Amino acid sequence: MAEWRNPEIAAMAALMASYAPPPGAPEPSWAERRMGFDAMGAAAPVPEGVTVSPITLGGVPAEQITPAGADPTRTIFYLHGGGYCLGGMDSHRTMVAKMALAAGATAFNVDYRLAPEHPFPAAVDDAVAAWRAFLAMGRDPGRTVIAGDSAGGGLSVACSVAARDAGLPLAAGLHLISPWANMQNASPAYRAKADTDFLVTQQGIDDFKGAYLGQGDPKTPLASPVFANLAGLPPILIQVGSEEMLMSDSTQLAEAAGLARVDVTLRIWPDMVHIWPFFAHLSAGGPAIAESSAWIRARVA
Amino acid sequence: MAEWRNPEIAAMAALMASYAPPPGAPEPSWAERRMGFDAMGAAAPVPEGVTVSPITLGGVPAEQITPAGADPTRTIFYLHGGGYCLGGMDSHRTMVAKMALAAGATAFNVDYRLAPEHPFPAAVDDAVAAWRAFLAMGRDPGRTVIAGDSAGGGLSVACSVAARDAGLPLAAGLHLISPWANMQNASPAYRAKADTDFLVTQQGIDDFKGAYLGQGDPKTPLASPVFANLAGLPPILIQVGSEEMLMSDSTQLAEAAGLARVDVTLRIWPDMVHIWPFFAHLSAGGPAIAESSAWIRARVA
Repeated sequence: MAEWRNPEIAAMAALMASYAPPPGAPEPSWAERRMGFDAMGAAAPVPEGVTVSPITLGGVPAEQITPAGADPTRTIFYLHGGGYCLGGMDSHRTMVAKMALAAGATAFNVDYRLAPEHPFPAAVDDAVAAWRAFLAMGRDPGRTVIAGDSAGGGLSVACSVAARDAGLPLAAGLHLISPWANMQNASPAYRAKADTDFLVTQQGIDDFKGAYLGQGDPKTPLASPVFANLAGLPPILIQVGSEEMLMSDSTQLAEAAGLARVDVTLRIWPDMVHIWPFFAHLSAGGPAIAESSAWIRARVA
Repeated sequence: MAEWRNPEIAAMAALMASYAPPPGAPEPSWAERRMGFDAMGAAAPVPEGVTVSPITLGGVPAEQITPAGADPTRTIFYLHGGGYCLGGMDSHRTMVAKMALAAGATAFNVDYRLAPEHPFPAAVDDAVAAWRAFLAMGRDPGRTVIAGDSAGGGLSVACSVAARDAGLPLAAGLHLISPWANMQNASPAYRAKADTDFLVTQQGIDDFKGAYLGQGDPKTPLASPVFANLAGLPPILIQVGSEEMLMSDSTQLAEAAGLARVDVTLRIWPDMVHIWPFFAHLSAGGPAIAESSAWIRARVA
């Protein structure tokens, strides 16, 4: 078990431990887990001066998040996390709004279908359908960054690979926060951080994989984009915490992208946990979003 | 063979191919290779307004490179590349001077002993001796970044690990350009980029390893710092080209550092070749040095 140098994360670890279900307690249902995840993301309000309006993109529910005074042409196309089984507009509205505000951009928060009801490749299909509709609206891909966290980080890459293969234009950048990019669920950080990571567990992530991919090959490129051909993808910013079981997914993705001649910036934040900018009570989220938004502004000046 | 999108690198590749020795030609001696490497690095002059003066650090020859108007307390402690067999003050003076000028820092260019005359751990011993003497001069490690390219990148990490283990204070950051950090000489980019990389060859790097490490274990941590315990090291900036056989050394080093809770920034520059900032005729060297120097200024404000 790591000794947490960051007191907020130490407190969060203690809190999570105190909420651990007793041995033998029934597993929460997907519905219960979704409610909990949505509530966690919605614990902090959308920042003032940001308007949120529903929209449909290629049949996929979404919402447009518009900060007052944002550059109307700079856009974030956001694919939320939640293991392909949890999350949606409610869980991620606040974090996406903060990122949009910091980047001076309009964001689209895309509510793709979830597993287990809708397994692979439903999420990829929805993301690509939404991207296609987004382009058809006249939005400029050259002024758009696709962003996502955790499963949404892997999905951002998968969506871009599928869009490339469909002949669609690609975004000006991909910004991935703690991406889940290798469904083998066995890379080095899984062992090294198993005792430290209090947010991702081997059982939990194997359950997500089972729900999404079933008995499918965990090396399926659109589910595990570390195995995809990433040639032609735009510059990628990856942010990951050093204390994550998913940390090696980020180094593997950086390597796969680099081997494919993609511009990569990998930022490993020491002491940080999975998708730390998602947790509004962690003050390290602000600097991470500042880093994201500076990169987005540099990509889409 | 990659199609080079950068015309300067395409021209360099063609030039290198035209200089390839005919089959059966005798191998150049180490002395001949050292002369060639020194000449390549010295092809461009030291920028105006930079003074260079000899110094000895713990018995190790070195030189102090002082740009006019630089912050006298911001310092770069530089360990040059050359496979532990080539290079020294002459080869790297110009590049280090450019970095010092851009960073507004004084640099120390350290001329550690070379293999095969002085095999492992002579380079590490000299780097640590020079670091110890540097500290004894009253230089502030908290206002110093250790930087190095290729073998000097691996040596920068090894020197820091050895300094940590000796109880010496560490620098405020490590900046590594195309580090050679894994003497197994077999990581994925070795295969993926074998036909592309016109600067590093399998035979060439195996020769360097043989000269430096002999029959030593290629996983020796102070020779292959991807296998070292990197805990406690300061933030690291790694720059590497996507078209390098050594690219995976950088992703592996990023992973090892992240697993040890070190702050890491990995920048993979698409289309770039091994230690491209070293080659003064490549205009992409300037932006790379600008990126380095911005990071150094942020670490040592």
